[in-house]
Amino acid sequence: MFLEVPEGFRLSTAAAAFRKEGRDDLALAVSDVPAVAAAMFTTAAFKAAPVLVAQERLARKCSVRAVLINSGCANACTGDQGIKNCRETIAMVANACNLDPMDILPASTGVIGMQLDLVKWKKAIPQLAVGLGAKTPEDFARAIMTTDAFPKCTSSTLHLAGGAVRLVGMAKGAGMICPNMATMLATVLCDAAIEETAWRAMLAAAMEVSFNRVTVDGDTSTNDTLFGLANGASGVAVQGADLALLQEALTGVLQDLAYMLVQDGEGATKVIRINVEGAVDATDAEKVARTVGHSQLVKTAMYGRDANWGRIIAAVGRSGARFVPKDVCVTLCGVEVFRNEQPTNLDFDVLLKDALAGRDVTVDIFLGAGQGAYALLASDLTHDYVSCNASYRS
Amino acid sequence: MFLEVPEGFRLSTAAAAFRKEGRDDLALAVSDVPAVAAAMFTTAAFKAAPVLVAQERLARKCSVRAVLINSGCANACTGDQGIKNCRETIAMVANACNLDPMDILPASTGVIGMQLDLVKWKKAIPQLAVGLGAKTPEDFARAIMTTDAFPKCTSSTLHLAGGAVRLVGMAKGAGMICPNMATMLATVLCDAAIEETAWRAMLAAAMEVSFNRVTVDGDTSTNDTLFGLANGASGVAVQGADLALLQEALTGVLQDLAYMLVQDGEGATKVIRINVEGAVDATDAEKVARTVGHSQLVKTAMYGRDANWGRIIAAVGRSGARFVPKDVCVTLCGVEVFRNEQPTNLDFDVLLKDALAGRDVTVDIFLGAGQGAYALLASDLTHDYVSCNASYRS
Repeated sequence: MFLEVPEGFRLSTAAAAFRKEGRDDLALAVSDVPAVAAAMFTTAAFKAAPVLVAQERLARKCSVRAVLINSGCANACTGDQGIKNCRETIAMVANACNLDPMDILPASTGVIGMQLDLVKWKKAIPQLAVGLGAKTPEDFARAIMTTDAFPKCTSSTLHLAGGAVRLVGMAKGAGMICPNMATMLATVLCDAAIEETAWRAMLAAAMEVSFNRVTVDGDTSTNDTLFGLANGASGVAVQGADLALLQEALTGVLQDLAYMLVQDGEGATKVIRINVEGAVDATDAEKVARTVGHSQLVKTAMYGRDANWGRIIAAVGRSGARFVPKDVCVTLCGVEVFRNEQPTNLDFDVLLKDALAGRDVTVDIFLGAGQGAYALLASDLTHDYVSCNASYRS
Repeated sequence: MFLEVPEGFRLSTAAAAFRKEGRDDLALAVSDVPAVAAAMFTTAAFKAAPVLVAQERLARKCSVRAVLINSGCANACTGDQGIKNCRETIAMVANACNLDPMDILPASTGVIGMQLDLVKWKKAIPQLAVGLGAKTPEDFARAIMTTDAFPKCTSSTLHLAGGAVRLVGMAKGAGMICPNMATMLATVLCDAAIEETAWRAMLAAAMEVSFNRVTVDGDTSTNDTLFGLANGASGVAVQGADLALLQEALTGVLQDLAYMLVQDGEGATKVIRINVEGAVDATDAEKVARTVGHSQLVKTAMYGRDANWGRIIAAVGRSGARFVPKDVCVTLCGVEVFRNEQPTNLDFDVLLKDALAGRDVTVDIFLGAGQGAYALLASDLTHDYVSCNASYRS
């Protein structure tokens, strides 16, 4: 997998041995010129130090030069010392790379409740500075991994009248909350020239139909962060009708990454696509999708390749959405399994045997109550999930 | 375990081979005289036939003579035929036991989407009728089991000025939703003479602080039912100040049963008691308790005997409850693990080693925001839970 870096960005990684020896655990992306910055952060009440510092920076200015991410230590639940350490690491990197500290956005992932080891940072930063431009998006994605099984990156090139615009996205996994490993982190770099307000709205809209529509275990981390930088280095100004095209490309990049997060959910063997249609409104549709997607019984059934319509119906029934039971219809991988309050009279265990053995499983739920719709990607619940999370710290 | 049956009630069980040979799967409780009846039913949108039939009966009259429960078939998602079959089984039992069909409340548990086998009912009913009075509460509790590991029953005797009043409660397990096995079912029999409105309010209040405060996997079944019958056969009229004493005894019986449900949650090795205090109000406290109690990450950590305060804090943080992070304090089995946004400076892994190895684990969460409180019992999430539910139908 070779992905091109958008114009005017340089990537670097380094090995600081924050948690393990012999792997890169520091990642830096630098833009040659100030880039318009957008970001989305965890909604959790306990926010990690880098989240607070990044929020503070973005409140003061709308353009930045760099994103700095470490794995191995989340710098969460670390109090005032954590904030101070975060600022200190930024200052060290700024100094080594000849940047203004205010131009660097930080993010961290890893063990919670532990302070950053500044000695290790100091030792690794020269390598990080020297390596700028030598690393690929895959290297970057690999350096921010924690329990992820594979690096997550994708790209998109948009050919507009004014020329080509490139996007590259790099992320790390969901479903691996604190302690010790934590967090969904993603960074999108784009070389379009775009107005700040439009870029921020675009990132928020793309987030809503990508990362906000996946679930591994329903948990939210102290560190969840999405950064989007657009530096204009392509020389292509995106405005007017082209905005919709860039939106589509950006959404596609985030949806690719979101799919990978579910695919690599801890212990996951399935990506379950839950489509709800015919709800009174989108809120009701989301209620149904999330209740089904978070149901331990549905998730274990999918793991067991079991065409278990009853568990899906039970989740729909307790979701709180408004509908008339007799109007509800459920289709599993294209085979109708439930209609008119009863299982359909098909031998769907046989019909679905092959489909349920695959990685992608689709659940279509039609409520017959309106036009509201919502789609969610969920992972299954497996023995490996329990093994991974029951023995995590030992 | 020998529990006395309250005055004026007779119990019976029979083996109909609904799902398995050689075990009782029909249970009947008959009162010699009309008993004041109260009931609570599933709030799920898809309600099983016996739930609809029982609701219809209780809407017409406030006293009944009997409770009739079968395991092996939930008679849920069975359409009009399911309702008809339910009425037919009631008619057969009424005929055999010389009761008015309108005096019998039905409940079912077991496979969903399958019709009752009336031939098996017809064959087993004579045994059920003949055996009345010969069976114990434990026999009754055993006959309504599905995947339960042990029968759940408990009793309480109240010595009032007017004489002794007895209560006995029998239940089957939670966390074993459709298909195939389903449902929380519970029946409480009491020989107090009590006015209908008071009895109904009492059962609702007891339910709220018992069955409504346990969670195994957060799912709700099509068949969940709680029946309470008070027949007055003790000759002791409960009124005035004695009502509070009976309330206390009834609540105790339901809380005992609720504890057993969690203890016997599928694959469970722990009963996690989550106490939330200091919330703005009870609603906020409940939000926190349920978010923690439903967190797959907390539940797997408890299974792994891991003093994982970070996962508890993450759940508190995304619960939506109102609080100031720095005021939150978390104690695990009596050892403070989190305060002032940071882990406490104790070697709590060592301090908690023995406590976390036991069956009962307590999580105390103090929010420092008000007087709201809520307590919830939750099971852990284990390899056996996944095994049980991933291979259920195969």
